[in-house]
Amino acid sequence: MDRRKFLKNAGLASGTAAATVIGAPAIAEAKTRWIAVSAFGKAGLLGQALSDFARFVGTASGGKLTIKVFHAGELVKPLEAMDAVLQGTAQMGYGAPYYWAGKSSAISFVAAMPYGLNAQEQNAWLYYGGGIEQADKIYNSLGLKFLPLGNTGNQMGGWYRKQINSVADLKGLKFRMPGLGGEILKTFGVNVVLLPGKDVLSSLTTGAIDGTEWIGPAADLGKGLFRVCNNYYYPGWHEPATVLDAFFDKKAYEALSPELRDIVVRGAAATNLFVLSKFQAANNTAMQKLIKEHKVSVRKYSDELLSAIGSRAAEVLPELAAKSPEGREIYEHITNFRRTMIDWSGYSEQAFLENRGKAKL
Amino acid sequence: MDRRKFLKNAGLASGTAAATVIGAPAIAEAKTRWIAVSAFGKAGLLGQALSDFARFVGTASGGKLTIKVFHAGELVKPLEAMDAVLQGTAQMGYGAPYYWAGKSSAISFVAAMPYGLNAQEQNAWLYYGGGIEQADKIYNSLGLKFLPLGNTGNQMGGWYRKQINSVADLKGLKFRMPGLGGEILKTFGVNVVLLPGKDVLSSLTTGAIDGTEWIGPAADLGKGLFRVCNNYYYPGWHEPATVLDAFFDKKAYEALSPELRDIVVRGAAATNLFVLSKFQAANNTAMQKLIKEHKVSVRKYSDELLSAIGSRAAEVLPELAAKSPEGREIYEHITNFRRTMIDWSGYSEQAFLENRGKAKL
Repeated sequence: MDRRKFLKNAGLASGTAAATVIGAPAIAEAKTRWIAVSAFGKAGLLGQALSDFARFVGTASGGKLTIKVFHAGELVKPLEAMDAVLQGTAQMGYGAPYYWAGKSSAISFVAAMPYGLNAQEQNAWLYYGGGIEQADKIYNSLGLKFLPLGNTGNQMGGWYRKQINSVADLKGLKFRMPGLGGEILKTFGVNVVLLPGKDVLSSLTTGAIDGTEWIGPAADLGKGLFRVCNNYYYPGWHEPATVLDAFFDKKAYEALSPELRDIVVRGAAATNLFVLSKFQAANNTAMQKLIKEHKVSVRKYSDELLSAIGSRAAEVLPELAAKSPEGREIYEHITNFRRTMIDWSGYSEQAFLENRGKAKL
Repeated sequence: MDRRKFLKNAGLASGTAAATVIGAPAIAEAKTRWIAVSAFGKAGLLGQALSDFARFVGTASGGKLTIKVFHAGELVKPLEAMDAVLQGTAQMGYGAPYYWAGKSSAISFVAAMPYGLNAQEQNAWLYYGGGIEQADKIYNSLGLKFLPLGNTGNQMGGWYRKQINSVADLKGLKFRMPGLGGEILKTFGVNVVLLPGKDVLSSLTTGAIDGTEWIGPAADLGKGLFRVCNNYYYPGWHEPATVLDAFFDKKAYEALSPELRDIVVRGAAATNLFVLSKFQAANNTAMQKLIKEHKVSVRKYSDELLSAIGSRAAEVLPELAAKSPEGREIYEHITNFRRTMIDWSGYSEQAFLENRGKAKL
């Protein structure tokens, strides 16, 4: 990559970029400069969120820690972001944990678990249920430090050219679904395809795939998936909520002063909430547009399908987790937390949402 | 108040505490010192959250902005926190918006609206739906600036000495419920009582009240309400989620540099997420304890009651909003946002929660 080489030569992208530079004695402030690489494009909600996070860290720290952001393709390819940090080209990366499944079979559990936790529960798990510590067992083993930096909230089930009503309809289907959900669908004879985001629409158009999951209405509308698929299914059983991950070179992170680390941690938590809130605020408007302007048919997965996939999830997920000790540990940790939350969410969120419509406000 | 006088004499609590102090010329950094007063006790989750927020602001700003926190009763009484800021004794206050209903008939809508938004939707509204701006129309008119600084999430419906099955059971009931929910219950002949938190348990014990709503399992367990009431109802139709409010002397807030304001805004957003996450993480464990150790009967409000109260809410809330132009505006703003969210949450959170149990993980 030319740009990488250029930066390397310019001394910007080397491992020593994280080293401190001592300023003039009168000020005597150490300045740390980081490079961040992202799996997401500059213009989208997540690209904006990363830029905004980096800007905050720079200003809040009074320039003591500056993060120069390279969005997807600007320095390395989207899915090379973790490699760039591992190789010392960058000190921070941004993506979704299941993008790095090649590095760890356990890491996808950090992103989302089919039939698992919704966003509110996921944040409770991460910040006060030991979730960040669990994730860090995986990230630390790679030489990284993990922090949540956004959440998509509950995703939509996906786009299908044809209606999907029963288990029989799954057999032979060519469907794009990364992560743990795809592993479950495989067991029903689905031909699960992994494709970079930029190839999804063209693959649907040519018929190379019969359908795809993407994110939710706001992101899906922008991607134009309604142009080739009319059937838009819910609920997103495969990604009840998806964590976006910031990962840092562990040594660079630990070299930060407690004050700078505090700014990074709080800034990341604020971004986490902002991203989720922005997705939610945009989703319904987008959904209405999809339905009214683009005549999309919004369909609920049948009970038969949700039950069959749910039963299969309970068999497949422990098998996937058992591929490594870290996988077994994080799966048990999440499912324990899920059991402690499932009753409470039934008394609270679920019961409230089911009854709210009784007031016509 | 002795302590207030002492601080005033010491020059700590005067309006000029927000003025800047120029340090040694070699550093030439302006230092701003604020006092914060809180409606919440020091030891609880919210007291800890405020202390933590203040600590973060101090360290992240390198001491350029320090906030000295006085918890409930330490400088002023809990419900005097807003007065203390309005009088210039403090530059920041912390509480729940409906605590300040005496200052504005519209302000309770910022806290929670019966049958309104859940926490995820409320944050979407606040940060990306124009909610902070709407709230600020009310707070600004008082000379204040508003920021959300925590959320309880969905609350429980409340504690009752006797079972409540029908509308007839409400008549003559002496029940503690502040905010808009209490106004709705009044129209059913409920004798709605407002009591400071510290008097709730004793009033239940003496029979001065027949029941009370409080927060949710984690907070309610600590308060010991199960000792006098056995019937614990859900869902919390009256407070689907409740915003905790930080309010600042507007002039003091606007005098901050953009960098310091950024630290305050991000720090507040992080605390907002931390508080919600902490409540959620603690609620189910507390619920299990209430059920298993304290033999509490958890009951769902009947459909008859939820429908009757919901219909009444649709009559009473617009009337309450119509007491002021700001009330009318914020009510319309929230209900518009609610309409744009209610479908999406049905496709996403609600459908997911209803089907998650199909996987026995």
